[in-house]
Amino acid sequence: MKVKIIMGSKSDLEVGKKAVEVLEDLGISYQMTVSSAHRTPERTEKLCEGADVFITIAGLSAALPGVIASHTLKPVIGVPVSGKLNFDSLLSIAQMPPGIPVATVGMDRGDNAALLAAEILAVSDEGIRKKLEGYRKHRREKVYRDAEEVETKYTAGD
Amino acid sequence: MKVKIIMGSKSDLEVGKKAVEVLEDLGISYQMTVSSAHRTPERTEKLCEGADVFITIAGLSAALPGVIASHTLKPVIGVPVSGKLNFDSLLSIAQMPPGIPVATVGMDRGDNAALLAAEILAVSDEGIRKKLEGYRKHRREKVYRDAEEVETKYTAGD
Amino acid sequence: MKVKIIMGSKSDLEVGKKAVEVLEDLGISYQMTVSSAHRTPERTEKLCEGADVFITIAGLSAALPGVIASHTLKPVIGVPVSGKLNFDSLLSIAQMPPGIPVATVGMDRGDNAALLAAEILAVSDEGIRKKLEGYRKHRREKVYRDAEEVETKYTAGD
Amino acid sequence: MKVKIIMGSKSDLEVGKKAVEVLEDLGISYQMTVSSAHRTPERTEKLCEGADVFITIAGLSAALPGVIASHTLKPVIGVPVSGKLNFDSLLSIAQMPPGIPVATVGMDRGDNAALLAAEILAVSDEGIRKKLEGYRKHRREKVYRDAEEVETKYTAGD
Amino acid sequence: MKVKIIMGSKSDLEVGKKAVEVLEDLGISYQMTVSSAHRTPERTEKLCEGADVFITIAGLSAALPGVIASHTLKPVIGVPVSGKLNFDSLLSIAQMPPGIPVATVGMDRGDNAALLAAEILAVSDEGIRKKLEGYRKHRREKVYRDAEEVETKYTAGD
Amino acid sequence: MKVKIIMGSKSDLEVGKKAVEVLEDLGISYQMTVSSAHRTPERTEKLCEGADVFITIAGLSAALPGVIASHTLKPVIGVPVSGKLNFDSLLSIAQMPPGIPVATVGMDRGDNAALLAAEILAVSDEGIRKKLEGYRKHRREKVYRDAEEVETKYTAGD
Amino acid sequence: MKVKIIMGSKSDLEVGKKAVEVLEDLGISYQMTVSSAHRTPERTEKLCEGADVFITIAGLSAALPGVIASHTLKPVIGVPVSGKLNFDSLLSIAQMPPGIPVATVGMDRGDNAALLAAEILAVSDEGIRKKLEGYRKHRREKVYRDAEEVETKYTAGD
Amino acid sequence: MKVKIIMGSKSDLEVGKKAVEVLEDLGISYQMTVSSAHRTPERTEKLCEGADVFITIAGLSAALPGVIASHTLKPVIGVPVSGKLNFDSLLSIAQMPPGIPVATVGMDRGDNAALLAAEILAVSDEGIRKKLEGYRKHRREKVYRDAEEVETKYTAGD
Repeated sequence: MKVKIIMGSKSDLEVGKKAVEVLEDLGISYQMTVSSAHRTPERTEKLCEGADVFITIAGLSAALPGVIASHTLKPVIGVPVSGKLNFDSLLSIAQMPPGIPVATVGMDRGDNAALLAAEILAVSDEGIRKKLEGYRKHRREKVYRDAEEVETKYTAGD
Repeated sequence: MKVKIIMGSKSDLEVGKKAVEVLEDLGISYQMTVSSAHRTPERTEKLCEGADVFITIAGLSAALPGVIASHTLKPVIGVPVSGKLNFDSLLSIAQMPPGIPVATVGMDRGDNAALLAAEILAVSDEGIRKKLEGYRKHRREKVYRDAEEVETKYTAGD
Repeated sequence: MKVKIIMGSKSDLEVGKKAVEVLEDLGISYQMTVSSAHRTPERTEKLCEGADVFITIAGLSAALPGVIASHTLKPVIGVPVSGKLNFDSLLSIAQMPPGIPVATVGMDRGDNAALLAAEILAVSDEGIRKKLEGYRKHRREKVYRDAEEVETKYTAGD
Repeated sequence: MKVKIIMGSKSDLEVGKKAVEVLEDLGISYQMTVSSAHRTPERTEKLCEGADVFITIAGLSAALPGVIASHTLKPVIGVPVSGKLNFDSLLSIAQMPPGIPVATVGMDRGDNAALLAAEILAVSDEGIRKKLEGYRKHRREKVYRDAEEVETKYTAGD
Repeated sequence: MKVKIIMGSKSDLEVGKKAVEVLEDLGISYQMTVSSAHRTPERTEKLCEGADVFITIAGLSAALPGVIASHTLKPVIGVPVSGKLNFDSLLSIAQMPPGIPVATVGMDRGDNAALLAAEILAVSDEGIRKKLEGYRKHRREKVYRDAEEVETKYTAGD
Repeated sequence: MKVKIIMGSKSDLEVGKKAVEVLEDLGISYQMTVSSAHRTPERTEKLCEGADVFITIAGLSAALPGVIASHTLKPVIGVPVSGKLNFDSLLSIAQMPPGIPVATVGMDRGDNAALLAAEILAVSDEGIRKKLEGYRKHRREKVYRDAEEVETKYTAGD
Repeated sequence: MKVKIIMGSKSDLEVGKKAVEVLEDLGISYQMTVSSAHRTPERTEKLCEGADVFITIAGLSAALPGVIASHTLKPVIGVPVSGKLNFDSLLSIAQMPPGIPVATVGMDRGDNAALLAAEILAVSDEGIRKKLEGYRKHRREKVYRDAEEVETKYTAGD
Repeated sequence: MKVKIIMGSKSDLEVGKKAVEVLEDLGISYQMTVSSAHRTPERTEKLCEGADVFITIAGLSAALPGVIASHTLKPVIGVPVSGKLNFDSLLSIAQMPPGIPVATVGMDRGDNAALLAAEILAVSDEGIRKKLEGYRKHRREKVYRDAEEVETKYTAGD
């Protein structure tokens, strides 16, 4: 399997689904599962194998990304999940100590985590890179269409 | 041993020494050591035994307290170490998910961690409680002395 | 009584009930009450006796945990209640001065406060420790069930 | 005595001295002392009498202003003292619950606390008001002098 | 008139009404009005007379309290109004420069602003002080009633 | 055209419309469009011409204002759009490096961006300045009307 | 005079000098002075004339930019000065209410304030625009030189 | 070349050197250079080719990582550089919009950026993976040595 997605709790499912959707679009094999760094540490450890890239999704004190990163040399991407304080998960994931990097993406950005995973795989996989080009082109065209629609409606004077 | 003190890095030594000093004063047996949640996960796991209370000290994304707490049912105290952002370690330690509590004390407060450990042991150990009373009395008297000194110098009118 | 739960205001009841629920599950005797550090200081002082562990719950400037801690040598757990600023209660409870520790748990985490109280009692009470093991096992199994459910639904490719 | 200044710790002395200096300038009787809300609660309570206005100075979780305010109906002014987090003392003092107001001034602003105390006394004391007018005039003239000095040096073109 | 309440915008009315309600309860004469530090500076200046205490209520960059304070020697109380950032109004009001104090109360705390105004007036008005005692007693009794209700329902074991 | 309004995404339309409304009121020619600094960098670059002032509107990491500012010497106004963290867009727009200024206005303040654009144009256009005077007078009168309404309803005693 | 620079206090001089230096480089006439929104409100008001653009520099609760903006229809640029909290001045200047815009630049960025002022003047002054082009070109070349120096030293492998 | 390191300013050199040091240790070819997203946008664009992974280093509003990411499909790693506000660069880099991911590492963590780059290359390069294993083992052993040293010195009782 190319990508393993691990959520710290089933309550992070909406963020996880954003990652799944992008991987489906790009035709990249994946498995999504649940494991808590704190409630099931033994299970979390065992999940650190069998994939080229790991996407980890967690809120609050969000130890999951770091714990996965401490058990593998594969790239680990961390997605902070928003909550009452918001900053807690972002800082917990981004501020890793020297020696154990985690690739942090934006708050709730499961989609960007999947795109980053695809970019990492594309370093040595031309097929994925082609699909990424298509994906980006598609999003670019959406902006052009939006621009046309807005300009038509909101222009005055010369 | 009553208390095990685990620092995430030797660079947290100043905070650890504050805990050691209080435990020495109260005559409570302890061992202080170093283990990184991220760099030596296998070692960290093995440390989760052989003490009644754990004091964990960590900065940055500070996963150590939570990792210890996930492997033991003994009370785990977490001391956030200050750094460039300050908030990162405090939030990483305090915002634990449901099911795995960590007893967070103030930023760099190794001393309060040791006092809290003593209070926990004193629930079933009258000797420690007596010593805690002495310790608190001592600090109280210091305030009275300071007050007298300040009042003498800074009073005007009637 | 083993645990006394003190809320700063009746409006903190939802957080208090999370603590009650866990203590009921673990069969630990408790009493929950209301007392304001600021509106009923004389009452607050009198509550500082008759329990092995205190759970204090407060929002805003949240002086209650510290005031209780200043009148007892029993372990005091503080639960910050979320509000408009969120940070205010967390910082007011966590940042205690040297000499008077409060064991701070996460925002609105009445459940973790009760588990921490149980862990403290379990240092000298084998019965509670056994129940804590059961409780933790139960939560662990929930993660495994969630994992199975998610994996079945969200796996693609090989 | 008109004003009682209470610092939570002797380490807040630099902030306290700013208040003393202003009260001396305005000829208002005062006494400055030390009492910790947490280390000497019994002493703190007893200090809540014998003055028309209270100035309280504290850092960290800063319960002192609120504790004083809970025991008196005289106006209580709170001065947050800066530290590693800064926000902690400001929020702890400002975010009082309904019913018990504290008049918060800026971080480390012992001087403004004394001026506010003077303004409060001046509501019914014409003599203090006159002195306040002089004090403000004096500071205003300082700005004019600074302005002249800067304009002379930093002007170019027409 | 004893108290003048100035809101920076009619949209702050809910906070203003909390102040009005308390002043009505205490029988203190007042007038509430609207004036923007930025949109009607000339009007704001003229309002700085004819009262013993000023309550100012403002959100966002909240210059109103400081502008009033710069034109009077009467005590000025500032109430920060919550919004998207929350911190903006609190900091804008609390962090006044040396020489011009504003008595900041908690976020949206119109009620505490009125109580603080009453405490200030009570320094030289025994009648108001008596009423404040009644008010505080009333609130204290409410806590006792809440406590009884909660204790009855949430007690288990012995 | 006098003013070009560029939104980073069509989802910023509500903020953009506030700018459009003000420019319509003041009779200033404009065009509003959409271009993403990140998704359509080539398009963004091409938009940096053909106007006297640029209004840029963006949320999250909000690179758009800076990118526009790096390609033109015309004044660039940046409007941060609120989101889950709020601070992200404000800091991304305000904290520009030396050499490339962006004129940041308040969170979601499309209206103030348009007024600032008008003030900039009015430096050399007497007609716009006259209209700005009318606009400001209109808003001032609204405050006076609100004041009258509030005073009538909320005054007690003398 | 083209640009008037107003500092809230002489202690902001280092930031003011950065603006002066840029205006000197660009040959734009200016005058720098000091006036406090709070200590010399009457003086501040009088300064709101006689220039095409205003640069205002202030720390803490930083009301100066908004007060100037409330008395003129000329563009007002605000420079937040850093201090103990940092956020206070940035938020106080940026979060202006609807109707009264202030063009906020980055923390301590007197230089960018001057460049923004020059861009505003350059809308109708070709001479200033030419100089701005030179200035920007100069800074661009500095980056190229730095790049060359770094590349030479820090390249390895092929 | 495997890795291109781009700093937004030569003043970020200390952070850049941490990345260089790690890449040297791992024998990975690299080139480090300087280019500003805002001062040399045309140069920045041209740098988006000729490497498998990009490491971008920037402070303040930190647009550089996002601009590079918008011009390439290779993985882009962003290193926030600390400054007066600290949060500004972290949020500017982490909070990328959907479609354009940046792999954010901790504040000033040039070393972790290089390790993440190595992990990405190691997905398809067994040689680098072997070296990463050695590197991690080396750091792990350091913790064990520190632990031994600390334990020897700080143990008391049994």
